[in-house]
Amino acid sequence: MSGRRETVTGALFTPLRRIPTPGGDVRHGLKASDAGFAGFGEAYFSSVERGAVKGWKRHARMTLNLVVPIGEIRFLVVDEASGARRAFHLTPDRSEAYGRLTVPPGRWMAFGGVGEGLNLLLNIASIEHDPSEAENRPLDAISWTWTGDDS
Amino acid sequence: MSGRRETVTGALFTPLRRIPTPGGDVRHGLKASDAGFAGFGEAYFSSVERGAVKGWKRHARMTLNLVVPIGEIRFLVVDEASGARRAFHLTPDRSEAYGRLTVPPGRWMAFGGVGEGLNLLLNIASIEHDPSEAENRPLDAISWTWTGDDS
Repeated sequence: MSGRRETVTGALFTPLRRIPTPGGDVRHGLKASDAGFAGFGEAYFSSVERGAVKGWKRHARMTLNLVVPIGEIRFLVVDEASGARRAFHLTPDRSEAYGRLTVPPGRWMAFGGVGEGLNLLLNIASIEHDPSEAENRPLDAISWTWTGDDS
Repeated sequence: MSGRRETVTGALFTPLRRIPTPGGDVRHGLKASDAGFAGFGEAYFSSVERGAVKGWKRHARMTLNLVVPIGEIRFLVVDEASGARRAFHLTPDRSEAYGRLTVPPGRWMAFGGVGEGLNLLLNIASIEHDPSEAENRPLDAISWTWTGDDS
């Protein structure tokens, strides 16, 4: 698919379609046949207020497939082994920024709320929530920035 | 789980948790081990404007798992064989109405926008979109009402 970006961190951005439909549009998310699909364990939503940052977290086994259906969220993905960092801004409000971010296991990730209203992500996770496979670090353990590190 | 309602149409309402979290809450959706899970084919969003109704549609093979992360949507499920009808109002804004609606194949469904802002549903569908397994009828083919038919 044109516009797909595989980055030095191993994270993958895949553009998605918004399909105009009478009464309200349809927005693609993830198909089992798509690049980046790694199995279905659980789908859940997480919201993040403007100016708030959630992170850092690293999964040992979970692949994340992230879509932002409302608002705007900045994601930072860090591959500690190589030192690579990449930022992604996801929002449905700009067609080039509506897409899916696939984060394979083993990367640190944090995300921050950019939009003024509700900033909501859907994570279609490859396994069910399991605290034993996730590590957490305080936000100041890895530098978070609101700009730069563009994907 | 307490509060689960299996209805005469075969549709299933399962209450979901909203988990208060610093920076923004987490909202459950669907786990592979949950009642109603019938496989993962595709996840997509559909929006419906206030006062607009989308339907009727009946799937031959797809099981729908529907969650409304923002706004409020009224769903009507009709089992033509028995004549049974049931309505479900899904919204995250009232804790008793935040949940997942599972619609097995073979039922007619339509849904209408109730909230003033964005009314958004996530469908975690058991198969990928396939027009050959879905039938459509115009809205006036089966009576739509904005009230009644409570689940």
